[in-house]
Amino acid sequence: MIETPYLLFLGDAADQLAAKVAQGIKDWRPEFAIGQFRMEGCKADLGLPDMDLAAAKAAGCKTLVVGVANRGGVISGAWIKVLVDALAEGFDLASGLHNLLRDEPVLVEAAARFGRKLHDVRVPEVEYPIANGKKRAGKRMLAVGTDCSVGKMYTALCVEKEMRARGMKASFRATGQTGILITGDGVPLDAVIADFMAGSVEYLTPANDPDHWDLIEGQGSLFHVSYSGVTLALIHGGQPDALVICHEPTRAHMRGLPEYTLPTLEQVRDAALLLARVANPACVAVGYAINTQHMPEAEAKAYLADVEARLGLPATDPFRFGAAKLVDALAAI
Amino acid sequence: MIETPYLLFLGDAADQLAAKVAQGIKDWRPEFAIGQFRMEGCKADLGLPDMDLAAAKAAGCKTLVVGVANRGGVISGAWIKVLVDALAEGFDLASGLHNLLRDEPVLVEAAARFGRKLHDVRVPEVEYPIANGKKRAGKRMLAVGTDCSVGKMYTALCVEKEMRARGMKASFRATGQTGILITGDGVPLDAVIADFMAGSVEYLTPANDPDHWDLIEGQGSLFHVSYSGVTLALIHGGQPDALVICHEPTRAHMRGLPEYTLPTLEQVRDAALLLARVANPACVAVGYAINTQHMPEAEAKAYLADVEARLGLPATDPFRFGAAKLVDALAAI
Repeated sequence: MIETPYLLFLGDAADQLAAKVAQGIKDWRPEFAIGQFRMEGCKADLGLPDMDLAAAKAAGCKTLVVGVANRGGVISGAWIKVLVDALAEGFDLASGLHNLLRDEPVLVEAAARFGRKLHDVRVPEVEYPIANGKKRAGKRMLAVGTDCSVGKMYTALCVEKEMRARGMKASFRATGQTGILITGDGVPLDAVIADFMAGSVEYLTPANDPDHWDLIEGQGSLFHVSYSGVTLALIHGGQPDALVICHEPTRAHMRGLPEYTLPTLEQVRDAALLLARVANPACVAVGYAINTQHMPEAEAKAYLADVEARLGLPATDPFRFGAAKLVDALAAI
Repeated sequence: MIETPYLLFLGDAADQLAAKVAQGIKDWRPEFAIGQFRMEGCKADLGLPDMDLAAAKAAGCKTLVVGVANRGGVISGAWIKVLVDALAEGFDLASGLHNLLRDEPVLVEAAARFGRKLHDVRVPEVEYPIANGKKRAGKRMLAVGTDCSVGKMYTALCVEKEMRARGMKASFRATGQTGILITGDGVPLDAVIADFMAGSVEYLTPANDPDHWDLIEGQGSLFHVSYSGVTLALIHGGQPDALVICHEPTRAHMRGLPEYTLPTLEQVRDAALLLARVANPACVAVGYAINTQHMPEAEAKAYLADVEARLGLPATDPFRFGAAKLVDALAAI
């Protein structure tokens, strides 16, 4: 659990895209995004107040989040100086970089000296249990995809936002590093030991109020041979009551697998339901979330209309056109 | 890779069952099982020559294998003394215990001093790649189960034995600690990091001669919610050409999950084929391996006949009645 709110460290970001983790935090948890820290040469700007460490401390920030991809996979000396100063100032540090904070001896030493925490969100901080498969109170939605990186995290976040706007009880449950940094909590599922994957998802989505929705970030795809085991652990550990099937229509092949074409929406729906019903016989598919970012608006709307006509369930691009249709369907369960 | 042949350490085994890993090595790799080392009070006996360390060394043993479950989860002082002496004598050590050899400082120190290796086969020793899903030469059979612990390892070993007796090229591929100790090599799949599970199975079953069969030990079950993700990683990483479906008919519920009944053979066949064909569209189910150890012979034979009549594929208990029917079916692919 990462303490909030955050000072978002943009470093010397080469462009706006390099700061996409920070952008995600600002978009989805604006109440956590108090200010930004930019170094000389930074080409990203979130439109937040620029703060030095003292100002951010005074404004109540608890954690400095490295919200930027580092160049060349190295945490530079210039960054290190700022990060040590932040620890001295009383901030914890959180990062989703491949290069771990804990692998930098000077940061480990400074964190110990100042009594602060280093959160490398790619690495589990908890010893997860083996899944027990017991039915838990509360409702759960899982985003499942035709492929990796088709919008499963955004779909779950969009549904959470719409549910909260309607006064429903809803919690986005992060299973990847960006989602964990956005919410301050979650399970870095791709880094969990095989035997404990499903148990970590049970841990992430515990019993709750009967009218509370966990909106679980999906990972991988049942049809992506590199990561399908992670997906099935989510389906069985999450015990979803509802599946939303996510797709990106312009994808030419499975991500990273040029020999593999994408499955159809029907194939994903049928395979995911078959397996989900092992853990929760009442599980249903409620709709389709189509990532239309590479399609003009008219084409996107025609595609969504076609999916609805063909598959008989609501279809939307929740980021572009809103998640109301999906929430209507979820609220009816 | 563990150096063979072995001296099998039985310690002070409380009974024959406590030495079942050593028994498995003797049953399946008799050429590796040169001798046994028994301490005072040992109640197990494999019928192998009793050897002290010097005699085993002279007989060519390279590794002392802890082939026994330890009492109370502690590696006792009496064991430690023997294990240190073995390192001094020039043996490597191999163990599948939950308590790791590497967590005993005196063993780590002695291994370093004498230049020997400690193999804890529950812990991966390799940095596995991400699976790439590329088609590999050679043929592969995967044992899939209705549940955990229904005989998947024994099925793959029985098929290997029958294939080798017929002069076919065949390699049992171990994915659990007992199998790894039996063969001296393999992947401890339940301890692999989620993202690398399928890649570790690709690594385990590389391209081979077109007429060579990898006989892959299965793990878990697509219908066991605690471990199903591990099973799917095997199905997609292994790219099986053939599935053998394993079942234990007297099981009242899924192992460790009292609320879950077992799936039918038809359900397992259909779900496993659906998913296996993502990686290998030519995959087929070739037969059923029924663990009839809790059934009298007449009842067992009637059960097998019923499975064959109902499902239209060969069914056998490969350990009790031989694997010939399964190998006939595999050889016909």
